[in-house]
Amino acid sequence: MRDIRIALDMMGGDYGPRSTIPAAIRAVDKYPNLHLFLCGHSQSIHTFLNKHNALAHPRLTIVHTEQVVNQDERPDLALRRKPKSSMRKALELVEQEQADACVSSGNTGALLAMARYVLKTLPGIKRPALISALPTYENEKVFLLDLGANINQCADTLFQFAVMGSVMATEVEQIESPRVALLNVGSEDIKGSQHLKDAAIKLNNCKEINYVGFAEGNDIFSGKADVIVCDGFVGNVALKTIEGVSKLILSKIKALSEKSFLSRILAGMLLPGIKKLFSKMNPDQYNGASLVGLRGIVVKSHGNASSQAFFSAIKEAVKEAQRQVPHKIKDKVEQVLNDEKK
Amino acid sequence: MRDIRIALDMMGGDYGPRSTIPAAIRAVDKYPNLHLFLCGHSQSIHTFLNKHNALAHPRLTIVHTEQVVNQDERPDLALRRKPKSSMRKALELVEQEQADACVSSGNTGALLAMARYVLKTLPGIKRPALISALPTYENEKVFLLDLGANINQCADTLFQFAVMGSVMATEVEQIESPRVALLNVGSEDIKGSQHLKDAAIKLNNCKEINYVGFAEGNDIFSGKADVIVCDGFVGNVALKTIEGVSKLILSKIKALSEKSFLSRILAGMLLPGIKKLFSKMNPDQYNGASLVGLRGIVVKSHGNASSQAFFSAIKEAVKEAQRQVPHKIKDKVEQVLNDEKK
Repeated sequence: MRDIRIALDMMGGDYGPRSTIPAAIRAVDKYPNLHLFLCGHSQSIHTFLNKHNALAHPRLTIVHTEQVVNQDERPDLALRRKPKSSMRKALELVEQEQADACVSSGNTGALLAMARYVLKTLPGIKRPALISALPTYENEKVFLLDLGANINQCADTLFQFAVMGSVMATEVEQIESPRVALLNVGSEDIKGSQHLKDAAIKLNNCKEINYVGFAEGNDIFSGKADVIVCDGFVGNVALKTIEGVSKLILSKIKALSEKSFLSRILAGMLLPGIKKLFSKMNPDQYNGASLVGLRGIVVKSHGNASSQAFFSAIKEAVKEAQRQVPHKIKDKVEQVLNDEKK
Repeated sequence: MRDIRIALDMMGGDYGPRSTIPAAIRAVDKYPNLHLFLCGHSQSIHTFLNKHNALAHPRLTIVHTEQVVNQDERPDLALRRKPKSSMRKALELVEQEQADACVSSGNTGALLAMARYVLKTLPGIKRPALISALPTYENEKVFLLDLGANINQCADTLFQFAVMGSVMATEVEQIESPRVALLNVGSEDIKGSQHLKDAAIKLNNCKEINYVGFAEGNDIFSGKADVIVCDGFVGNVALKTIEGVSKLILSKIKALSEKSFLSRILAGMLLPGIKKLFSKMNPDQYNGASLVGLRGIVVKSHGNASSQAFFSAIKEAVKEAQRQVPHKIKDKVEQVLNDEKK
């Protein structure tokens, strides 16, 4: 088993090292072939490592950085003013091929901007996309992209998202011929905007992709497809709506369960399971969202992510590094582009 | 209290008279000033009225129609080929001012197309919108539009949706100065597409509208705004995603609750409340969605709507008729357009 090296942005998120250090230690304990670069203020990393008696760990390397990207910092300003930030350093380690992947729970917009700037898109890829997996009725996973990496609408971009999503489903979930659908307001061919119809035609003509047609919002969870493709605006609204509904329902169930003494006791039995389910409904809180289409692996963990969530994001990065997802995407895109020429 | 006359499409939905007749009878029992025109096959309406001993009801008038619009019929074909349908007749009664409103649980696309064709948009209104109310954490209501009446994206249209949504919130929920937000992928001004930014500027400059800025998907339920505006594509995806999440969570909770004897008991206590909550999460199943911006009131009830849902849709229509929503929208739009000229 070859070594996996991952660069972690230790300063990201609302808790910084307090949540990232325990996750890092858990990760190296789980994977004997995992080396982690801990990017951030050496002083505070040092303190937290010491706290967990992990200072001398042979597979944890501190990489000191001066700056920190704030959660509310404007992406363009972070890109210009934070060249010495932990986020930037983690990405640079991937670009310099010292690390196979990078994980950050920092400012999403800044991470997207820096990742594009530092890593660049893969040959043939117009735009990167943010992708994550959601649960379906049958406890399978469905990959949804783009979750907000870019909000432009273009048939070629949607087509490439479909290709990248298909590769992710194959590599990360071992689905041989993933069913790919385009998110639309109806399943009939006449539905939707022109760029969606054009993307559908392109996908129909592409023998590399198992295109199954249009899907609607309620199909995200129905298991109709393994990959659901949409532009970043729609994907972002859908994802945040899912998050909002989940939280609302959880709060209502809590209120319901406090109605009587008995229901309080019994709720105590159900709520953990319900909460676990809801954490899955918020994928970026669950196992992170991945930025695909770049010359390196970047996994985004949620800003107010717990140590558990950051650990899950690291696991996701390990998986993608083992499967060499960027190379697989590059190959698939080349294949598809060549077929188009024929 | 003046009389309210509502035309019902009795043949719409998956159940037709079986669910529409009991709802109609309940409605006239509830509102002593309500007259209903029952549009559809007189024979089958007759049969079901007889079944419920309501044949002789003085405020139920059968209006015989030959044709029925199928649930899966293409809107353009329905418009051309079903001029004698129960749906068309119900709309015509509104257009001829014999009815104050129309309620149908039929084919949504066909209803939108026919409603636009028969009733026409109000002066100054570019496009009608489908609007419905969702619950918030504080058990208040938030109006979301457009839910899919049209998928074009244009700043002026979004601006008009904001005006119409604001009137609905005031008239239907008695909110004096409704807080209006635009659905976007972030709350910062720099976020989103140009037509969203342009709509934001228009709303900022409009003193008739209490514009509170951009809202994200998770803000739909947070109570940040009373009205949330988006284009029909995004609104439709958001609404159907909400429906999908709700169903998924309900199915998972059922599965959880069957794990043990005690949890089954709990489920017995909680599930009714949870189901009620979830029915609210599917507004068109709950109290229908209204088509606003036309010269008449049209309420759409869900296709597989129960008698309860159709009854709720009738109640919604009564409310809008009492408040004369179309006139209020017309006045507000004129007001806004005049202010723009100044």
